[in-house]
Amino acid sequence: MNISKFVAPEIIFGIGGLEQAGESCRRLGARKALIVSDAGVLEAGWVEHIITFCRNSGLEYELFYSITSNPKDYEVTAGALHYRQTDCDAVIGVGGGSAIDAAKAIAILATNEGVIHDYEGIDNIHTPLPPMVMIATTAGSGSEVSQFSVIVDSTRQVKMTIISKSLVPDIAIIDPRTLATKDTELTAETGMDVLTHGIEAFVSVAATPLTDVQAKNAISLVSKHLRASTASRTNEEAKTAMAMASLQAGLAFSNAILGAVHAMSHAVGGRLDMPHGKLNAILLPYVMEYNYLAAPEKFMHIAELMGQNVSGMTVAEAGKRAIHHVRMLATDIDIPARLSDIGLDDARIPELSRAAREDACLITNPRDMSVRDLETLFYRAL
Amino acid sequence: MNISKFVAPEIIFGIGGLEQAGESCRRLGARKALIVSDAGVLEAGWVEHIITFCRNSGLEYELFYSITSNPKDYEVTAGALHYRQTDCDAVIGVGGGSAIDAAKAIAILATNEGVIHDYEGIDNIHTPLPPMVMIATTAGSGSEVSQFSVIVDSTRQVKMTIISKSLVPDIAIIDPRTLATKDTELTAETGMDVLTHGIEAFVSVAATPLTDVQAKNAISLVSKHLRASTASRTNEEAKTAMAMASLQAGLAFSNAILGAVHAMSHAVGGRLDMPHGKLNAILLPYVMEYNYLAAPEKFMHIAELMGQNVSGMTVAEAGKRAIHHVRMLATDIDIPARLSDIGLDDARIPELSRAAREDACLITNPRDMSVRDLETLFYRAL
Repeated sequence: MNISKFVAPEIIFGIGGLEQAGESCRRLGARKALIVSDAGVLEAGWVEHIITFCRNSGLEYELFYSITSNPKDYEVTAGALHYRQTDCDAVIGVGGGSAIDAAKAIAILATNEGVIHDYEGIDNIHTPLPPMVMIATTAGSGSEVSQFSVIVDSTRQVKMTIISKSLVPDIAIIDPRTLATKDTELTAETGMDVLTHGIEAFVSVAATPLTDVQAKNAISLVSKHLRASTASRTNEEAKTAMAMASLQAGLAFSNAILGAVHAMSHAVGGRLDMPHGKLNAILLPYVMEYNYLAAPEKFMHIAELMGQNVSGMTVAEAGKRAIHHVRMLATDIDIPARLSDIGLDDARIPELSRAAREDACLITNPRDMSVRDLETLFYRAL
Repeated sequence: MNISKFVAPEIIFGIGGLEQAGESCRRLGARKALIVSDAGVLEAGWVEHIITFCRNSGLEYELFYSITSNPKDYEVTAGALHYRQTDCDAVIGVGGGSAIDAAKAIAILATNEGVIHDYEGIDNIHTPLPPMVMIATTAGSGSEVSQFSVIVDSTRQVKMTIISKSLVPDIAIIDPRTLATKDTELTAETGMDVLTHGIEAFVSVAATPLTDVQAKNAISLVSKHLRASTASRTNEEAKTAMAMASLQAGLAFSNAILGAVHAMSHAVGGRLDMPHGKLNAILLPYVMEYNYLAAPEKFMHIAELMGQNVSGMTVAEAGKRAIHHVRMLATDIDIPARLSDIGLDDARIPELSRAAREDACLITNPRDMSVRDLETLFYRAL
């Protein structure tokens, strides 16, 4: 049996989509929503807008924004307590991957017993979650459409990956207008995260024709629009294209899962609290060099999707061209070239490699990886 | 505001997918399902298989198979009565578009008052439907993933189009193995129906980047595999490709809606009880000739998707090439060229044109159409 499965939330995409936040939640039968966000998004003013739209729809709300980047288990516990104490019956997440992953984890504990650690791994959620509306304000994580939530276990200092169909929100809202408040660095990093999602989903051993169409379009959109989106906060065409790329890459990886880039960046991010997008951006070309062997034709296809004319090239030449172009894109938008540039110490590599080996994302990487292989790759990227 | 919306069921696709029928329904909380099908599917043996899988999952069931092609309002009434009298709490549809559209309509009346006519049009369903698992056994209708149900009003002799997010099933199961029991004619007709869905969704005024990726892939798959699928019942590669094409075209048209081909074929099908796929197949190239003016670049793109090298051609030449290739494909698989070949009488044309003008599918056609335009087109296709 070779069965493909595909799940997606209801999607509302476009300039002005934000205005449907309250109404969407009401439509799901909610009376009072916990709005989960972080300080940065709050400062950008988007939460305030959403509160207005909730009020207009007759939806009561509570606000919880004690979420940091790489959200922690204790933040989730606090959020769930707030949810229960204030008698909420739905969750609205607003922000990038951190806020939305935290919002999903809070939703788990809203209707399920225990601590968030109990739900680590694949398919460990058995009680239905409350209605969830997720509003993405970075073109990056794809969490608003995915069945993933990644939360830091603060004791073990590892990122726990929680995967369950229950984590697919009911409704995802993507309003490209929100991207105008991201700074240059965040735009570049989260954009490279989208490319990583597209490429890892495309070469994943769990890829299907349904995920391929989304992944391929995402790769193509990023290679066309990420430079322009990084160059200008107000380029609406580029922002809309990157928002669509993020959405499509999210649909792809939610169903095809990811690979070694994410396994490695989760290991680093859990210990060193570094930005997820930046880590992925640095690691991506190194992992592509390693993975190339497993699927040369797919790498050739990536080169084509990035606008390269590969006619007359061998598969090998075209595949290398893909990696070269990912590196050029990263350089153009000022992504550091090596992990040492962002302060990673080589003494941590054995420990990081062991942690990456345990990450659920490694299961779908197209080329086998031992702890030793991971070490070699970390050293190469250092 | 320019907002795109996208909804899809959970999808289970692949050889052996059928085996998850009972378990899928149980997972949605169902205790006893009404299995809705038709005599042809029953004869092919698929319903028997599904009953076994239901039993194995501890799911009780009732069988209702008094459904004909172009399902009628009174069949829906009878099915809903059966559902209530036997105390069911879920619906499983098994078959092509007729059985699945009927199953959805029965689900409407299972939890909503009145008659099915009350729900005609867009967004007229307000009470949630029971859990729905839809199992497609023809690569054709796409109804297993769509927000459409088309039911014949037997008094007025028109097809009523019901469109609502509530009609998107919870779970769609597509098992390409089931296509092996379709005869040559049904394979050809339903395959051309898939092409029609792909092309109408792609040129629809409601098309979005999310529907475009699905529509384009569907057009490409049909042009590559429909001939081989029509030629052999046992060509598993071709059957799997056509099943995927049907699924992707279904996702595309469910969200981008359709166009004049469907408006016209609904008008004819409601009055003359002719096969929906065959009508679409005949009408498609004529409508393409008419619509070409509205989106020449899209028609050029269709030619490319059908494997034509359009380099060096003008947009106009390439667009005509697309229409030519649709006609060649239809001819190759023995689709009649004209409506008169299947017995349409020109005296009916004024009445059919007025009915087509009222069909919800005409709203998204890329070129404006008056009753007069529809008449002209019907005469051209006669």
